[in-house]
Amino acid sequence: MAKGTAQDIRRRNRFDVLRSVFAASAPASRQEIAVTTGLSFATVANLVAELLEAGVLLEVGHDDSKGGRPRARLAVNAARGALLGIDVAETSVQIELFDLALTVKRAVRRELSVVDVSPDQVVDAIVTGIEELIGADGELPHLLGAGVSVPGLVEREGGVSVFSPYWSWRDVPLRALLAERLVVPLYLDNPLKAGTVAEMWFGAGREADDLVVATLRAGVGVGIAVGGSLYRGATNSAGEWGHTCLERGGRTCRCGRRGCVEAYVSTRGIARTVRELDPRSSLLDADEEVVLANVARARAEGDPVAVEAVARTARYLGMAAADLLNLFNPQTLVLGGLVAEHLGERLLSQTREAIAEHALPATVQALTLQLSTVPGNPVTRGAATFALEGFLDDRETFGTVAAGRRAARTARALAP
Amino acid sequence: MAKGTAQDIRRRNRFDVLRSVFAASAPASRQEIAVTTGLSFATVANLVAELLEAGVLLEVGHDDSKGGRPRARLAVNAARGALLGIDVAETSVQIELFDLALTVKRAVRRELSVVDVSPDQVVDAIVTGIEELIGADGELPHLLGAGVSVPGLVEREGGVSVFSPYWSWRDVPLRALLAERLVVPLYLDNPLKAGTVAEMWFGAGREADDLVVATLRAGVGVGIAVGGSLYRGATNSAGEWGHTCLERGGRTCRCGRRGCVEAYVSTRGIARTVRELDPRSSLLDADEEVVLANVARARAEGDPVAVEAVARTARYLGMAAADLLNLFNPQTLVLGGLVAEHLGERLLSQTREAIAEHALPATVQALTLQLSTVPGNPVTRGAATFALEGFLDDRETFGTVAAGRRAARTARALAP
Repeated sequence: MAKGTAQDIRRRNRFDVLRSVFAASAPASRQEIAVTTGLSFATVANLVAELLEAGVLLEVGHDDSKGGRPRARLAVNAARGALLGIDVAETSVQIELFDLALTVKRAVRRELSVVDVSPDQVVDAIVTGIEELIGADGELPHLLGAGVSVPGLVEREGGVSVFSPYWSWRDVPLRALLAERLVVPLYLDNPLKAGTVAEMWFGAGREADDLVVATLRAGVGVGIAVGGSLYRGATNSAGEWGHTCLERGGRTCRCGRRGCVEAYVSTRGIARTVRELDPRSSLLDADEEVVLANVARARAEGDPVAVEAVARTARYLGMAAADLLNLFNPQTLVLGGLVAEHLGERLLSQTREAIAEHALPATVQALTLQLSTVPGNPVTRGAATFALEGFLDDRETFGTVAAGRRAARTARALAP
Repeated sequence: MAKGTAQDIRRRNRFDVLRSVFAASAPASRQEIAVTTGLSFATVANLVAELLEAGVLLEVGHDDSKGGRPRARLAVNAARGALLGIDVAETSVQIELFDLALTVKRAVRRELSVVDVSPDQVVDAIVTGIEELIGADGELPHLLGAGVSVPGLVEREGGVSVFSPYWSWRDVPLRALLAERLVVPLYLDNPLKAGTVAEMWFGAGREADDLVVATLRAGVGVGIAVGGSLYRGATNSAGEWGHTCLERGGRTCRCGRRGCVEAYVSTRGIARTVRELDPRSSLLDADEEVVLANVARARAEGDPVAVEAVARTARYLGMAAADLLNLFNPQTLVLGGLVAEHLGERLLSQTREAIAEHALPATVQALTLQLSTVPGNPVTRGAATFALEGFLDDRETFGTVAAGRRAARTARALAP
């Protein structure tokens, strides 16, 4: 039987305090954090004292107050250290260097060969990319951690890419391979989980605790947050929506089965839809990302093939999402990834219509459907957030029990 | 942002202690409960003291111990009061009277007319049924609560049947209607949630925290447990699996859409499969439950139509379950409800094959697929469990804060 230990709650509350500081449009007071998180003032004061002591938060000024003790304003201490977010996608590796306030400081991108990428090639791309990033000027940032997203099924604790269908990787110990060449705490997961954790810290997850985040790119899948926590399932493979069946006996999918959602709403699926509409369409290209960009541009110009391709994609997406939504009944469904970025509001509104047609009324009424509001690439940001969470979980970050007691005393001294 | 309060944890731990007492094959010691729940001995002693004071647990003997203080053995105090579990199904109302140890003491069943059942008819069936149950002998049990399961979408807090497709009920305030004639705390939910909570307390949920429970009868759906808690979604409609699409453009479903899972694996779906195989089959009957019983019997005798009907049902079920399992990646999928009861191991093994064919290998490897092990009707038992949970949540059950402090002192006095 699972249970919530006092430690789990403390961790959760610490995350909530920091999330509320990130979410605030200006430096926040302890009182404001208490209101946003729903935690007691004493708990907030205690956690803030800990975060100040660990250098994660800074006091950045005080409010005037009429007679009472001035209220300190708090912000994330951006200079405390740096985090890396690494998005190993099907055809490229994107690496971003963040400060602790999760502002992108520098970015680099390495293209991968189109077929049969080996683990060594990916490790090389990551290591040389980081070298380029960090060597970009003389100053060496203090790296607190690096999050790495790879497509497919990931065994997080062991840092293993269990199965990556795009390259047919099986049981690749990616974290161990990287650890041979990088001296920094490494956190491995997949783009669905990374995109969802980014949404939880920096997007729609600020408002909703039950959340489904669809990532639509070369691969398609969802991340699921339940009660404000990422839901992973028994083997961290929850969210494998891309290979649920949309059309029995339909299009062949790269997984070998037929009619999978991914075969319709991924970059490849959209290219295929265009080809079905007009095999000689000028929108077509060997690079499916180029097809997607062409469709988005031509759609805006009223090109009939592009108009129909977007309409069909939205219909496929809405039918598939309706079943997903009936099952999860989330407060919010977020559409993210390259497909959502390119097709934007048009895809959103037509998908909304298709969902309304196919999902149960109660599901639809409760639902907020929206595009991702995470700034930049949610996958690099989410990967960096895994590193941030790891840093916050690290016992060394918050010192010993004695330090905790000290913090508690400080908090009591500060309580109004 | 959601958070776990100290009260949530206390509630959760109290449930865990009681679940472990229910799960034990013989009266359990505090030490054994601590081992089973993973809670500290001090926490267990504290919660047990509270449960003893509230009369929920009893000390039923002591172990001999060599020199040390004898260890008390604990059991549920069956005589503390009674609970009612009420399963309003599509064609009948079943009412069971349980003691606090969740043993069925008496049961009654009322048939409903086949079409257009009104809320008043259901209320009448429930009230007269309870009168018959309680009036069965002179002794009037002390009723602690009644759980009522109705099909469809239920708004729990308000006790409203928001939508019940079988009778086209909309926004029926069933709890308020019942409260006019019954003086007992009433808890309303649907059979999917009831079947799942029964599984969590008395079945597969004792072993697994991430659990999907499929209920297959006139209606079809799932209940979902995440981290040992029932997952309800934004509007308590999570688990509406029966109306996900198995076959685009397939069989017409009673919901008006086509190709829904329910149209294939419900009692009605199976009757239709038999009719498709042989429109003049002797297995057919106007009552779909009779068809199911006929199929089960004829299958055992090797009747080719029955053999093929079960094989097709398993194939439909396995294909639909594969998508569900890829999404949730649960530790355990339980098959329950009339269909699973009648078709049993044969359905289970053929469904297992179909799942293995259609789900991702990681999903399949992690999965335990099993029939429900909840004794009796999981829906009546689950409904009674909702009443039990309500009783345990009631502040009056555990007295005031002062009583809590008293219990804590008692616990300290008992600690080894």
